[in-house]
Amino acid sequence: MTQKSEVSLRSLISDLLLAEPPHRELEGFLKGINTVGKAVAGEIAFLHQEGALAEVPACRASVLVVSQGFFGRLPALPSEILVLVSREPALAMAKVSRHFSPDPRPAPGIHPTAIVHSSARISSGAFIGPWCEIDEGAVVEEGAVLLSRVTLGKNSIVGEGSMLFPGVVFYGGVRIGKNVRIHSNSVLGADGFGYAQERTSSGVSHIKIHHLGSVEIGDGVEIGASTTIDRGTLGPTVIEKGCIIDNQVQIGHNCHLEEGVIVCGCSGLAGSVYVEKFAVIAGFVGIANKVRVGQGAQIAAFSAVSSRVPPGIRWGGVPAMPRREYARLQAYIGRLPELFGEKKKGEKS
Amino acid sequence: MTQKSEVSLRSLISDLLLAEPPHRELEGFLKGINTVGKAVAGEIAFLHQEGALAEVPACRASVLVVSQGFFGRLPALPSEILVLVSREPALAMAKVSRHFSPDPRPAPGIHPTAIVHSSARISSGAFIGPWCEIDEGAVVEEGAVLLSRVTLGKNSIVGEGSMLFPGVVFYGGVRIGKNVRIHSNSVLGADGFGYAQERTSSGVSHIKIHHLGSVEIGDGVEIGASTTIDRGTLGPTVIEKGCIIDNQVQIGHNCHLEEGVIVCGCSGLAGSVYVEKFAVIAGFVGIANKVRVGQGAQIAAFSAVSSRVPPGIRWGGVPAMPRREYARLQAYIGRLPELFGEKKKGEKS
Amino acid sequence: MTQKSEVSLRSLISDLLLAEPPHRELEGFLKGINTVGKAVAGEIAFLHQEGALAEVPACRASVLVVSQGFFGRLPALPSEILVLVSREPALAMAKVSRHFSPDPRPAPGIHPTAIVHSSARISSGAFIGPWCEIDEGAVVEEGAVLLSRVTLGKNSIVGEGSMLFPGVVFYGGVRIGKNVRIHSNSVLGADGFGYAQERTSSGVSHIKIHHLGSVEIGDGVEIGASTTIDRGTLGPTVIEKGCIIDNQVQIGHNCHLEEGVIVCGCSGLAGSVYVEKFAVIAGFVGIANKVRVGQGAQIAAFSAVSSRVPPGIRWGGVPAMPRREYARLQAYIGRLPELFGEKKKGEKS
Repeated sequence: MTQKSEVSLRSLISDLLLAEPPHRELEGFLKGINTVGKAVAGEIAFLHQEGALAEVPACRASVLVVSQGFFGRLPALPSEILVLVSREPALAMAKVSRHFSPDPRPAPGIHPTAIVHSSARISSGAFIGPWCEIDEGAVVEEGAVLLSRVTLGKNSIVGEGSMLFPGVVFYGGVRIGKNVRIHSNSVLGADGFGYAQERTSSGVSHIKIHHLGSVEIGDGVEIGASTTIDRGTLGPTVIEKGCIIDNQVQIGHNCHLEEGVIVCGCSGLAGSVYVEKFAVIAGFVGIANKVRVGQGAQIAAFSAVSSRVPPGIRWGGVPAMPRREYARLQAYIGRLPELFGEKKKGEKS
Repeated sequence: MTQKSEVSLRSLISDLLLAEPPHRELEGFLKGINTVGKAVAGEIAFLHQEGALAEVPACRASVLVVSQGFFGRLPALPSEILVLVSREPALAMAKVSRHFSPDPRPAPGIHPTAIVHSSARISSGAFIGPWCEIDEGAVVEEGAVLLSRVTLGKNSIVGEGSMLFPGVVFYGGVRIGKNVRIHSNSVLGADGFGYAQERTSSGVSHIKIHHLGSVEIGDGVEIGASTTIDRGTLGPTVIEKGCIIDNQVQIGHNCHLEEGVIVCGCSGLAGSVYVEKFAVIAGFVGIANKVRVGQGAQIAAFSAVSSRVPPGIRWGGVPAMPRREYARLQAYIGRLPELFGEKKKGEKS
Repeated sequence: MTQKSEVSLRSLISDLLLAEPPHRELEGFLKGINTVGKAVAGEIAFLHQEGALAEVPACRASVLVVSQGFFGRLPALPSEILVLVSREPALAMAKVSRHFSPDPRPAPGIHPTAIVHSSARISSGAFIGPWCEIDEGAVVEEGAVLLSRVTLGKNSIVGEGSMLFPGVVFYGGVRIGKNVRIHSNSVLGADGFGYAQERTSSGVSHIKIHHLGSVEIGDGVEIGASTTIDRGTLGPTVIEKGCIIDNQVQIGHNCHLEEGVIVCGCSGLAGSVYVEKFAVIAGFVGIANKVRVGQGAQIAAFSAVSSRVPPGIRWGGVPAMPRREYARLQAYIGRLPELFGEKKKGEKS
């Protein structure tokens, strides 16, 4: 695919290159980024996965960025292709990709269909799109973009340069930092799930604990589509700076994610889960109430976590435990037929 | 956090107190509710969890409600703090919390941007917010609030005092009772998932079974954000009064939840699941087609339920079984290394 | 339930009947479809499940369609009920159900509240409902229906006869074929989840890989409510014709589902998963990055799939393996108490 904006390659990735690129004008000629096998003139491609090596003969990119390891394995290429060796082609690609982002970039202003409370403060450089509603006391800082159909509840705050995609809902008191990105139909600040039981003559009644806390999101956080983050019971639910949260994630009341935590799709954190810095929670992970996940821990996909996870460890399974132990036990389970005297296939009697 | 409304403590929780509070004016001075460690003058705090006991020295609340068990363990407190002993501090907190709820309370009326079919009936005390659409024959009863961007399909009914948050969608024929609460972006009444297979010359074709049934929700039900409840194939999908359903829950066509059932976040019920009164389904539970869950059964988080669950039992695991049996088998799995002759760590040879 | 439209039974299901129906006028008298036990005069009912056999004495339908197997087990029925024997009553029901679908059928046109970019192309027979927004270069073909609050991003395409329910969001470049059906609040084309790590002086930073690819959906695909399908990194995420995807499903960037694949509710596919024709993925299944699922494979509910699934096989479990092997191992796990010398209940010592 090609895009019309043009970028200076040198400025983007020169610090990732192992050697100064040859004398050739790298400025202003890149029109797009593409896969190795489909890139054409004017485009840049990045070779950082084994699987893409087979595509190299079809490559017609103007620039091909490769790791040192792959460089030695390249077939002969047309001389029109500038091959650059990078320490980290994936990182180089991430940096270049930003310049071809398909994000809408509307000019600042408030769409006439938006409904903005008189006490709300909208910076002049912000964009408030069609059918947005901004409630009492809410604040939208410079460069923030609310694309369309976004609801900001009472006293909520959207920091500089943040982007909210169509259908995002903030209940009252939700505060997000700078350059936060929240995808469509995600909901921040809905009631936490808490009830007290009352015995009644006819049995039991669930009495709702109204949640009065807030949601606080740090700078640079990304939140996927259809994700829900509940407000705290009394204090806030906190997502610190640099966290990235995928689609369809549920984060319960009073959870606290420290800086740089990753939560992949379809995972769910019950109430008051505490996750320390840079822990990685893969997809389809459930974490029980009040569990603490240590710094840099990595929880494997499809895990049921119900007890404390130490820092730095690989953890996982149903029920979750050290990943290594889980693998060991799974191997033994696979050998259970031996214990029960069953012969393996192909084994002679 | 503090809120400006003021409530009478006595009227709220006097029946939960073990003794008549001392002669002191409890009326009209509470300004908010807060955690034990952060509460300040004018606020009330509730001590009902072991973890909060350590916060007591920092407490500056005007009222501290504690259980009898914790009462004996309290340190000396400033005389300004009125300490009340309650049989059930959590329940007391739930009752008090309602008075500080951050729910919007718009004045009745129909917003000029709403689109209401001429045959729909909107009670004069209801609120229909911006960009709501109310289709043919729909009914909204007294005191109901549709905050904004709510769709009510043909012939749907919203009972008295119910609140629908932004982005909720009702397909045709969805009927909810009184004081129901449905959070943002939840969808009620979408097609159930049913197909018949037809052999064709080129293979197989999935022929859709159009779902003609409805969704019926009883009084006082709560439904979280981004939850989906499909309509029945021919008859209704039923959620009886007092059920509480968390975020990101999926409830398939023709399910029937009896009174007071709890379903926690990220759980999914396939078609025609029947759940008897007051059963509790924790988070991340999948329940297969047509399974029946007995009255008061408790299904543990992260369980795969594919067969009938007896009443009153604790059930769980993957695959699910009596919780006790699952725990026993898990313990044996942990001891598999013994059977395979592997030594435990630290064991001498 | 009854509906007012009337259909010709003969034209719908005559090819499924084992014998030409008796001389009786079947045309134009059916007013609805209902369950066996609740159907009344003017309605048709289908008996294809054992459980419904007990309802037969209560049946007052005008037409009762049964399988040959059930035909021999029917009690005596009132002569007003025309009993038809069908090879495939479930398929017959699917075909008849379409004629009683509760889908809204608005007259073509563009609602005055919709915002349509001047460069977008809306066919004269399409319907664009209230508060829809159609961005630059988007195309909506004949007979397509965007019910309300639908966003079509730049250059997206909606094929003939497709229906998008309220709250659906397409990011830029999403293209769907003919007769596609997408339920409320689903999101197509949000960012894929990809990041490169950069070491910084203070630790690690997640650098976003901006996703530039698209989403391509084939003819006749159905997508449930609150489902998310991310756009590809560079190439497209592809859902081929005839696939059916339930509610709350997450499909990651660059996944490819071939024709006729079924994905049930709450399942999640990570990035670049490839699913061959007519495979069936039950509910609550997680599939890891780049896994390939073979043609016609059937993955059981609540499975964690992390390696290639062969064609035609039944697969499942946590971790997933051939279903038969999983069942065998589960049986052995159930017998672990024997190995540890524990007596079974009721066994004498």
